Amino acid sequence: MSGEHIVQAFKDLQDYICEQLTVLDNTGDFEEDEWLSEEGGGGRTRIFRQGRIIEKGGVNFSEVYGKVSDEMRANTEIRADEFLATGVSVVLHPFSPHIPIIHMNVRYFELSDGTYWFGGGIDLTPHFITVTGARAFHEGLKDVCDQFDSGFYPKFKDWADNYFFLPHRNETRGVGGIFFDHLRADNKITKEELLNFCVQLGQSFPKLYKKQIEFGIDKSVSEADLLWQSIRRGRYVEFNLVHDKGTKFGLVSGGRTESILMSLPPMAKWDYQFNSHDIPGADETTSLLRKGINWI
Amino acid sequence: MSGEHIVQAFKDLQDYICEQLTVLDNTGDFEEDEWLSEEGGGGRTRIFRQGRIIEKGGVNFSEVYGKVSDEMRANTEIRADEFLATGVSVVLHPFSPHIPIIHMNVRYFELSDGTYWFGGGIDLTPHFITVTGARAFHEGLKDVCDQFDSGFYPKFKDWADNYFFLPHRNETRGVGGIFFDHLRADNKITKEELLNFCVQLGQSFPKLYKKQIEFGIDKSVSEADLLWQSIRRGRYVEFNLVHDKGTKFGLVSGGRTESILMSLPPMAKWDYQFNSHDIPGADETTSLLRKGINWI
Repeated sequence: MSGEHIVQAFKDLQDYICEQLTVLDNTGDFEEDEWLSEEGGGGRTRIFRQGRIIEKGGVNFSEVYGKVSDEMRANTEIRADEFLATGVSVVLHPFSPHIPIIHMNVRYFELSDGTYWFGGGIDLTPHFITVTGARAFHEGLKDVCDQFDSGFYPKFKDWADNYFFLPHRNETRGVGGIFFDHLRADNKITKEELLNFCVQLGQSFPKLYKKQIEFGIDKSVSEADLLWQSIRRGRYVEFNLVHDKGTKFGLVSGGRTESILMSLPPMAKWDYQFNSHDIPGADETTSLLRKGINWI
Repeated sequence: MSGEHIVQAFKDLQDYICEQLTVLDNTGDFEEDEWLSEEGGGGRTRIFRQGRIIEKGGVNFSEVYGKVSDEMRANTEIRADEFLATGVSVVLHPFSPHIPIIHMNVRYFELSDGTYWFGGGIDLTPHFITVTGARAFHEGLKDVCDQFDSGFYPKFKDWADNYFFLPHRNETRGVGGIFFDHLRADNKITKEELLNFCVQLGQSFPKLYKKQIEFGIDKSVSEADLLWQSIRRGRYVEFNLVHDKGTKFGLVSGGRTESILMSLPPMAKWDYQFNSHDIPGADETTSLLRKGINWI
């Protein structure tokens, strides 16, 4: 299975997700920018703004190839000369604090020495955590995983707990999800199945988010809820700019800044030792921002 | 001159700056938190909120000592066993977009093998750059530098241009200022003079900011100005979380998160490919966000 085939599958996945989200939001539309990388390849950045449900979101496809740079070699085991990196990334910031922020990414990396791997993840960041919402999300992810390997969900769920974590806050970004990297074919799974896993995960994304919207859409929104949302969005910024490997790698390797930073919320607030005690549900949410919770 | 002596000089400097800023703002007051580090030492975090001019600011003193950790050894030449790090850091975010964000830091680092150095910097981030404001700021800094070494200003001004720079945006954080690190006594300057340089720089801070306030305080503020301020504040967040060495070092070395992140603005916005063309003065500001401008 060629890199080209995977690139096409990811392009199709971007189209599918955009179609589904357009139906789901029912008001806004995607604005597309096609861009070219100086090195080689490029991408299609699709931005959704001011819809009915989604305040700001992006569904990005990219396909970049070129020479392995010193920045890429640093802190990795990459020693080959050329690479291909392709992927689809989604982040959605809804208007309502009662609908979670969601993120999904699938990616494929190939080197001129024949090495390759798949990576990806999907995680949910509710401003207000509900156990019902978290459970539905994790059940949906487990269903996708179990079609491929019953070991995937527990392994990738733990990985997400550890990855989507802010050490400087000692809290998780949200209720987690799954995260995986360096997946290669072995005697249990073929390369084609790994691609299918990524694609099915991506295709499950609009369905999973639809449920989250349904849970939250009819809840009334107070000023206190909106303030808390702004504080939580601030933590989202902290995670993405301080910890997220994809963001850091993209920014230092000369990626397209506006496409990478589409993940940032439309607005965020910071207050010194913010007092959350007067915001109903805020402290309960904070108490659930920890690793190792079995949501199912 | 002992580390203790320097610690006391920095404490006094924090007191002086807080007094002066309280007079200058004329409405708000500082709220103090004394904290202890798990390793050893601690600090006094002083936060200013909702004043007349300053929306959010911090004037922090810290004095931390302990064993050199692996994180500290990584990417540095530090091989000694124990360290003392002390410093004063200030960041002020004003309400008015016509008054700049300002930052100042002086610090001293000492190792158990006898090595020591001073570092620091001060830089100005106007939401709307004026040449008059930038010139006054740089002239004030040059005056302080010239009292110690006529080579300081040109050298430290270039250092600031390179340090306060966002490669992923290809723009400077603002109009720069001065930045220096690893300053040690030599045949031209004593350790005591270096401390005096740091202290005088810190003491000049309220005077320099007073001028900036005077330049901007009477200017009317439009909705468009406030929007642009939010976007510029977003860039300030990006610099501090992606590039600023002090912030990164503090967060990974187990520093006190709320004290370190006092530098973040009260609120920031991000918009995909934000259109600044309808905001009077915005594009002119962007055109001046580059290295190597001789403001004097």
